[in-house]
Amino acid sequence: MTQTIAKSLAVAVLVMGHFAGVARAKDPLLSWNDGTTKKSITDFVAKVTTEGSPDFVKPAERIAVFDNDGTLWAEQPMYFQFLFALDRVKALAPQHPEWKDQEPFASLLKGDVKGALAGGQKAMLEIIMATHAGMTTEEFAKTVNEWIATARHPLTKRPYTEMVYQPMLELLAYLRANGFKTFIVSGGGVEFMRPWVETVYGIPPEQVVGSSGVVKFESAGGKAVLMKEAKVEFIDDGPGKPVGINRFIGRRPIMAFGNSDGDLQMLQYTTAGGPAEGSPADGSGSPRFALIVHHTDAEREFAYDRQSHIGKLDKALDEAAAKGWTVVDMRQDWKQVFPSK
Amino acid sequence: MTQTIAKSLAVAVLVMGHFAGVARAKDPLLSWNDGTTKKSITDFVAKVTTEGSPDFVKPAERIAVFDNDGTLWAEQPMYFQFLFALDRVKALAPQHPEWKDQEPFASLLKGDVKGALAGGQKAMLEIIMATHAGMTTEEFAKTVNEWIATARHPLTKRPYTEMVYQPMLELLAYLRANGFKTFIVSGGGVEFMRPWVETVYGIPPEQVVGSSGVVKFESAGGKAVLMKEAKVEFIDDGPGKPVGINRFIGRRPIMAFGNSDGDLQMLQYTTAGGPAEGSPADGSGSPRFALIVHHTDAEREFAYDRQSHIGKLDKALDEAAAKGWTVVDMRQDWKQVFPSK
Repeated sequence: MTQTIAKSLAVAVLVMGHFAGVARAKDPLLSWNDGTTKKSITDFVAKVTTEGSPDFVKPAERIAVFDNDGTLWAEQPMYFQFLFALDRVKALAPQHPEWKDQEPFASLLKGDVKGALAGGQKAMLEIIMATHAGMTTEEFAKTVNEWIATARHPLTKRPYTEMVYQPMLELLAYLRANGFKTFIVSGGGVEFMRPWVETVYGIPPEQVVGSSGVVKFESAGGKAVLMKEAKVEFIDDGPGKPVGINRFIGRRPIMAFGNSDGDLQMLQYTTAGGPAEGSPADGSGSPRFALIVHHTDAEREFAYDRQSHIGKLDKALDEAAAKGWTVVDMRQDWKQVFPSK
Repeated sequence: MTQTIAKSLAVAVLVMGHFAGVARAKDPLLSWNDGTTKKSITDFVAKVTTEGSPDFVKPAERIAVFDNDGTLWAEQPMYFQFLFALDRVKALAPQHPEWKDQEPFASLLKGDVKGALAGGQKAMLEIIMATHAGMTTEEFAKTVNEWIATARHPLTKRPYTEMVYQPMLELLAYLRANGFKTFIVSGGGVEFMRPWVETVYGIPPEQVVGSSGVVKFESAGGKAVLMKEAKVEFIDDGPGKPVGINRFIGRRPIMAFGNSDGDLQMLQYTTAGGPAEGSPADGSGSPRFALIVHHTDAEREFAYDRQSHIGKLDKALDEAAAKGWTVVDMRQDWKQVFPSK
């Protein structure tokens, strides 16, 4: 190696160092207003990532779990997966002439969603099953991908993939940059989320925990496929969330993020952990963090909590106050809600 | 930066390059004899990792799934998890005086395993349930860890964590070094494997798919725990393996490794995949790889296949021949079976 090359290398190293400095200086949580909420996050991350700190957690144990509906993306006026199902009912109606006289489909096809849902949970389940079963897992993923690429939110007219919260996207990236492994733990269908979450959130399909239907292996003529059946297998909501976390992840998370009473048990399970593996034996280090996104911004998003049918936040809000969990006041804490167009 | 520092840097870069060269030159599959078996693996890995190759697969899609019993570690004279259960029956017997007159426990406590198993699958399930339920997931993990640290294989007297196959350890590391994400997909209990697989195989708990029992969330006095119940939830064997892969991983693997008929559907599902995402649209690139470990080495390990009660390999061996899957002849293909002491 000549001295000239050596010099160039030295310059390259200097330049790279300079850019690294710039990256460090830039606020990774740019859409969060400064204040106690933001500080509670950055303080926690600092203490679990500082080697030698009594709260240091080794990277393998830095598991962070996120609810999806109402935590990473919006959930009003209805869960987006349910809006997907409604679109599918319309698309599949020509193949189901019997739906014209059969509830909840008859009402739906007349555009009467409220009438269709008069049948309560049973009606909702029928709609989900009619639109989420009877095809292979790969065919279903294709349908989801086509919908997510073309459908628009009924109020904002933006693609659903733009109805995600910019501050939460930054938070996901910030945690990963600090050695965390980020998971979705959602009441939504796992097969509905997996096709698009990697692109939108940077979370690969194998890090998505969700509700699921039964699938059955079928092998005929060399084509080995999995057929989706009209039968619920697992509801990843409420007490199902810690069960799902245990089933899929197998470790107790150290950070959990939710927005409704359906997340309460996940937050309890996360914060009730014993000392994280790798923390000192004296018990000082058992750092756990829970956060609730409180929808307080009727202007930029939606304002709802204790009385809402969707994303009801009541018991978990009381428990957050009692236990000192972080509560995001969307109106106060977020500079920006959705990504810029 | 002075010129001296620049020179030191240049030297450092040269030295690092030298070590990288050495690492490349060293065979990562040292315990595999050269031949068609080894070559089928390295050829496949080369083609899916060579950018511009029609068979190139982007890293996110490089999913490799491994059976555990008989593929990563031994499974004779009995599945090791069953040997764990037998040890637990002995340890728990003082708390269960009724077992003295109750099969299958009575026979077991007299040391008559064969008599205990006369009750067939029902007896086996009773033994598993009696030893794997009635405690929290964390208490169970602790029990497994204590056992794995102290128990010895009945024939070799080595710890079970040394009854793993050295060539497969090298293969796991080799695949990961080539951008693969490695998963276990085993008929064994997921909660039995997770406590130790990270140390032994370098596979984190969240990349383990296995059979499971029902767990229930319980929250009392601020202690949020998951209780293991005596009820089977999921059997990750045979047609359950593709179902488990879909449930936990959500992508079709491109490489699968097994050793018995219980792995057949996993191998079928893996090899029947359409073009991997990221491969060219002309259909040329749909590279899939299946491998079966054939236990042919009575001297260094055990020799068994079509007639064996444990790890029966019959239909899958025929299908491997018909479809050109790689079959490892342990006696011929492996320089070494277990790690050196």
